[in-house]
Amino acid sequence: MNADNHVHGGNVYAWARERGGTLNGVLDYSANINPLGLPASVQTAIVQSVGQVIHYPDVEAALLKTAISSYYQVDAAYITAGNGAVELLYVLAHSLRPKRVLIPVPAFCEYERAARAAGADVEYVYASPEHNFALDVKSLCDYLSRVDMVFIGNPSNPTGTLLPVSQLEQLLFAARQAKVMVVMDESFMDFIIDGGKYTCRPLLKQYDNLVILHSLTKFYAIPGLRLGFALAHPRLTARLHAAKDPWNVNSLAQAAGVAALADQEYQQKSREIINCEKDALYEGLKALPVLKPFRPSVNYILIDTSLSGHSAACLRQRLAASGILIRDCSNYPGLSPYYMRVAVKLAEQNKMLLEHLEQVLR
Amino acid sequence: MNADNHVHGGNVYAWARERGGTLNGVLDYSANINPLGLPASVQTAIVQSVGQVIHYPDVEAALLKTAISSYYQVDAAYITAGNGAVELLYVLAHSLRPKRVLIPVPAFCEYERAARAAGADVEYVYASPEHNFALDVKSLCDYLSRVDMVFIGNPSNPTGTLLPVSQLEQLLFAARQAKVMVVMDESFMDFIIDGGKYTCRPLLKQYDNLVILHSLTKFYAIPGLRLGFALAHPRLTARLHAAKDPWNVNSLAQAAGVAALADQEYQQKSREIINCEKDALYEGLKALPVLKPFRPSVNYILIDTSLSGHSAACLRQRLAASGILIRDCSNYPGLSPYYMRVAVKLAEQNKMLLEHLEQVLR
Repeated sequence: MNADNHVHGGNVYAWARERGGTLNGVLDYSANINPLGLPASVQTAIVQSVGQVIHYPDVEAALLKTAISSYYQVDAAYITAGNGAVELLYVLAHSLRPKRVLIPVPAFCEYERAARAAGADVEYVYASPEHNFALDVKSLCDYLSRVDMVFIGNPSNPTGTLLPVSQLEQLLFAARQAKVMVVMDESFMDFIIDGGKYTCRPLLKQYDNLVILHSLTKFYAIPGLRLGFALAHPRLTARLHAAKDPWNVNSLAQAAGVAALADQEYQQKSREIINCEKDALYEGLKALPVLKPFRPSVNYILIDTSLSGHSAACLRQRLAASGILIRDCSNYPGLSPYYMRVAVKLAEQNKMLLEHLEQVLR
Repeated sequence: MNADNHVHGGNVYAWARERGGTLNGVLDYSANINPLGLPASVQTAIVQSVGQVIHYPDVEAALLKTAISSYYQVDAAYITAGNGAVELLYVLAHSLRPKRVLIPVPAFCEYERAARAAGADVEYVYASPEHNFALDVKSLCDYLSRVDMVFIGNPSNPTGTLLPVSQLEQLLFAARQAKVMVVMDESFMDFIIDGGKYTCRPLLKQYDNLVILHSLTKFYAIPGLRLGFALAHPRLTARLHAAKDPWNVNSLAQAAGVAALADQEYQQKSREIINCEKDALYEGLKALPVLKPFRPSVNYILIDTSLSGHSAACLRQRLAASGILIRDCSNYPGLSPYYMRVAVKLAEQNKMLLEHLEQVLR
């Protein structure tokens, strides 16, 4: 029923259905969600707002936009609030209807799915594992004349590669010359301690061919609630508003976003813990001689399993039996069946992951 | 900022902003929401599900679709779950890209907005107040050769007109011959006691040019949570799934929908009370000699204010000062500035509305 080739991580409900319906005991390493879980401040905001669901959501998302504007230092006229960042990918694609898009791969599958939904052809540029999947901006620029939109994840999912804003500005400049829209997905930027070096937000006023997508569901552990935003020149922002359902962001997500962006303690603690645990998990994975993890920048790690002889699908199945879900990356263009991705969680959980991995690799 | 010409009812947040931010004391007659308010069963389901927002929503919306399938007697393969019915209007328009759509007006403004967002031209057929805005199916059929999509509200919003399924089948038959898609909006059907006479659901298997839209936010008083669905032939349902964000329906809305559809007591009580109160409010409005209300079929009443000499905008402003919001219908194509719409609420509230109306009409 409604089969869809784009299988994602994080589908705990499908896992639970196979096992009689309960989510108990699942350790979900397949979705890149902040392991600190729902901030207490956000939980309170949601529960206190439940009575308000009898009203339509604020179509202006005024309080949420004020909070985003203040936290990310962007004028509110540049903000489109979304039912998750992914909704806005679709709004963007349906609204601009690119004819041909460029996607450096491996990349988040929804770029391609949204582009194709709007009728676009898709061209890949393959990043190579020999260069740790680093993006070569110069060679990317050579392709610009052939497309009208390019999607970049910064940091990239699933590879974790990260480009400094200086290099991205070269791409934006060349893209503007070539009349190409650059969709910059900064959905994991909040996890980075020195994010200021990498975000393109300061370039928004200069480049009207730039759209930044930003999810709030990963860092604040609210993927079930759906919340994200797009940043773009006010002209494009007006087009996005015209192409979307005016009530797209539910009231509870709006309230949650306001509370989340005010919770400095959670923000700081999250960045510190994840920065520390990502390195620890990376070292732990490296110590398993048949795995080749790629150095993480944020809260997930891509792993080449080929030396182990086990495909990601096989490892996924074996680990799922113990309630540990990992992301089999074999459906990412540009990756072999021997790539998997794991999220970064807390020390004790990561220890459990490493122990189970060691067992299934024996 | 992001100005939008399509102003809707139910914007209590804009009202509150003008008055310093609080929703206290608002009596919102501008949105057609069940006055019984949030069902206790739904409130419980939401609160109990808050902890689950750390997971992505079920992309299959499996439990929700099972509940919809069972309650509305439709095969699950025909169901697309939506972030409100309005989201699915946009998904439908962006996905099918009609060139020219037909809208009998006055009608819910989002039909036009979604069609235009997808690049369609819009043609109106005007229903006339002399015939109580009744839709003439035969004359509608004459227009079919000129369009590729037609939007029908049954019951229609804001007029409340209702067509029996026998007449609608004539339209569906003619539309199929003319290769025209019929979008049937049944978002207020749940309020009708003998809804079986009016719903086109039994025709879904026969007519692959039929899409039924259905909101769950009005009858269950959860507009802030967003929940609706579309029913269509599995082929079209697959296209809708391909054109939308896979995580469009948040986890809390999915849980709320399952609880709502199981709450028979709330359903029965709602239909009984609203059916009774709509007639009482209609009589009360008729008793004000300068108002001409149109007979309601569900939980809202369209009113011609021209005899009073007061435009809807004027009445809206005067009533808002007392915290009573009504819908100024002057931005509906086909209605003069002397049309307003009020929701049907509980007896005591309706009495208050009538008293305030009497005062401002003096």
